Parts: sequence; C-alpha cells; structure tokens
Amino acid sequence: MRAVFQAELDQIGGQLVTMTNHVELAMSRATTALLDADYTLADWVIDSDRDIDRLKADLDDACFQLLARQQPVATDLRIIVTALSMAADLERMGDLSAHVAKVAKLRFPESAVPPDLRPTILEMGEAAQAIVAKTASVIASRDLDRAKELEADDDIVDRLHKDLFRTLLSDRWEHGIEPAIDMTLLGRYYERFADHGVRVARQVVYVVTGVMPMRPAAEWVSESG
Amino acid sequence: MRAVFQAELDQIGGQLVTMTNHVELAMSRATTALLDADYTLADWVIDSDRDIDRLKADLDDACFQLLARQQPVATDLRIIVTALSMAADLERMGDLSAHVAKVAKLRFPESAVPPDLRPTILEMGEAAQAIVAKTASVIASRDLDRAKELEADDDIVDRLHKDLFRTLLSDRWEHGIEPAIDMTLLGRYYERFADHGVRVARQVVYVVTGVMPMRPAAEWVSESG
Repeated sequence: MRAVFQAELDQIGGQLVTMTNHVELAMSRATTALLDADYTLADWVIDSDRDIDRLKADLDDACFQLLARQQPVATDLRIIVTALSMAADLERMGDLSAHVAKVAKLRFPESAVPPDLRPTILEMGEAAQAIVAKTASVIASRDLDRAKELEADDDIVDRLHKDLFRTLLSDRWEHGIEPAIDMTLLGRYYERFADHGVRVARQVVYVVTGVMPMRPAAEWVSESG
Repeated sequence: MRAVFQAELDQIGGQLVTMTNHVELAMSRATTALLDADYTLADWVIDSDRDIDRLKADLDDACFQLLARQQPVATDLRIIVTALSMAADLERMGDLSAHVAKVAKLRFPESAVPPDLRPTILEMGEAAQAIVAKTASVIASRDLDRAKELEADDDIVDRLHKDLFRTLLSDRWEHGIEPAIDMTLLGRYYERFADHGVRVARQVVYVVTGVMPMRPAAEWVSESG
C-alpha cells in the first residue's frame, strides 16, 4: 500500500518537473521572440500556454484523486496540498510567458525592445530561465542548497528591474511613452515570473523541512539550513 | 460527526468572508490614499496586508487540520481544496492593495494620479470594490446569479484599463514618462485585483455546481445556469 502511494507521489513530482520544463521553454522562447521580433515563435509560446494549463488541470486531478483515495495525513498530506499550490504558481508562470509573447506580437515587425534596453531584457530573460531551470532541479532532487541559490537569482532580477526603470526615467530616454509602457509591463512580467519560480522552490523546502523559508535568505539559512 | 464537520466547513466559509472584507477595505482605502495623497492611510493599507497574510495562514491551517482529521471525500474534499485556492487569491488581492498604497506614498505629497486620469482611477477603484463586495456576498450566500454579475463588473475594469492606455498614448498626454509608468502599473494592479476577485467567485460556483465556469459569461450560463 505504502509503495503504491509513494509511486503516486513520485508521479506527481514528475508531473511538476514536466510542467516546470514546459514553463522554462515557454519563457526562453518568449524572450527570443521579443528580442528578435519573431511572430511565429511568439505564437508558439501563446499556444503552449494551453498545454501548460492542461498539465495543471491533470496535476490538480492527480492530487485530488490521491487525497480522496489514500486519505493521507501529516507529511504526505502536506506534500499533496503543496503540490497543488506549486502547480498554481507554474500555471501563472506560463501566463506570464504568454504575456511577454503578446507584447512581441503587438509591435511586430519591430522589436518592442529599444536598443538601449536589449541588454537588460536579455539578462532578465536569462535570469528568469536560470531560476526556472534550478526550480526544476530543486523539485527533482530536493536539493536545499540549490533552492537557496534561487533567492540570489531573484535578487538579480530585482536589480535588473530597477536598472530598467532607471533607463526609462533617465534624460537619455528618447523613445517616448509607448515603449516606456511596454517596458514597464515587460519588467513586471519578468519580475513576477521570477517571484513565482522562487515561491515554487520555497515550497519544496517547506515539503522537505516542514518550515516555510522567508526572505531574507539569511533567515532561511538559520531556520532550516 | 457530520454536524461537527459541517460546523467546521461553515467556519472556513466565515474565515473566507472575513478575509474578503479585509481585502475590500484595503483596496478601498488604497484608492482613497492614492487620490488624496494620504500618506497615513497608505501606511494603514500596507500594515493591513500583514493581517491579511495572517488570516491566510490561519485559513490554510484550518483547511489542513480538517483534511487531516476528517479525511473528507467527494464534495467535501472539493470544498476544502477550493477554499485553499480562494485564500491564495485573496492574499494576492491584499498584496495588490498594498502595491497601490506604495505608489501613493512614493509620490507624496503630490497625488500620483494626474488630473485627467482621476475619473478613470476613481472608477477603477469603485469597480474593484464592487467586485470584492459581491465576492464576499457570493461566498456567504452561494448566490450563483450574483456570481455571474461579477463577469460584467470585470469587463468594466477591462474597459477602464483600455481607456487608461488610450489617455497615456494620446497627444494630450503632457505628464511625461514617470506618471505614465505609475499609471501603467496602477492599471495593472487594479486589473489583476479584479481578475482575482472574479476567480474567487468562480470557485464558489465550482464548489456549488461541480463545474468551473469559463469565460465568456455566456458559456457559463449554458454550462451551469
């Protein structure tokens, strides 16, 4: 009985990793579509959001069935309830990837990103991708040290987000209102994406240690490390 | 046994209503703080977000205890799992209220809202408040007709959000980049707040009917009405 239950729990973990991989590919391609003004790739990202939503629905269903059939308590119950919450975060990350792709399409055949902000957006995209790649590995390995690294990655995104606003508000900004609005929204999408990624990793820590890590990272180390 | 369980379920419903009332007050005051450049009121909203987070933690705990002790199946299980998800939406609505309040503080002693956008922001604030007030009444009464009205209220927020962008992009916009960034973010906060409110109401419909309503509202009517 326990072996069956464990196998089902492992399967839910596998579904979470699959979902995370989908989200990683979606945001990576969304960033490319944005910087290269690639309409077809942007469409791919928007379509793939439906797959991510379906994976979320499957995961919800698997968790629900497991709760109903196995009536878990204590740690097992915590794992399943947390998996539901992680899936909700990952689904939202899929939405945010699609939002980035929609901005790419809106300005086609131009790139929505003015030349002076291309390095910032490229770095934000890379940091977001690093976060989600590490998140997948944290889910698969339950490696808590790796999970802690994510807080630093999130700080990089926050710093880039501030850089972006500094550029928008500097006297050198010569692109007017519309690109400023685009960049404000894009900055927000990347920042939210990174936040959700870090939340997912924190939930893995919670499942493993029973303690939900709080920012700043220093507290987390003393609480659970 | 059943009576005890029902009493505990009712208590969770009561906690959701309490949380919704807190969120309503937070966003209502955030809008006032924003339009009146009221620093003290903005601080109140930011502090109250901690209370909302605590209500969320209490609700999570109550749901978790009930799952562990009563081992519910079928509809009862669905109610509890959905309550967890509703609480997550409401917590996010508290965050968004605090975001609005932070913009108010950032521009103090000026109002962050240029005169030509005051009517739009006032209307967005009122529509957001109407949504959350109805959401509380939907949770308390399980009134599905009321829940359907919320989709129309959400359309109002979407329309106002579009109006806001139209103003920002018109030739008449003379306030420069910084207020355009503020207004872009504020528009997004109100729009997300409204989305989460509608999601909460949809989850009530799901609990009552077993069918999760999808947009557009017309489909919802044919599916569950």
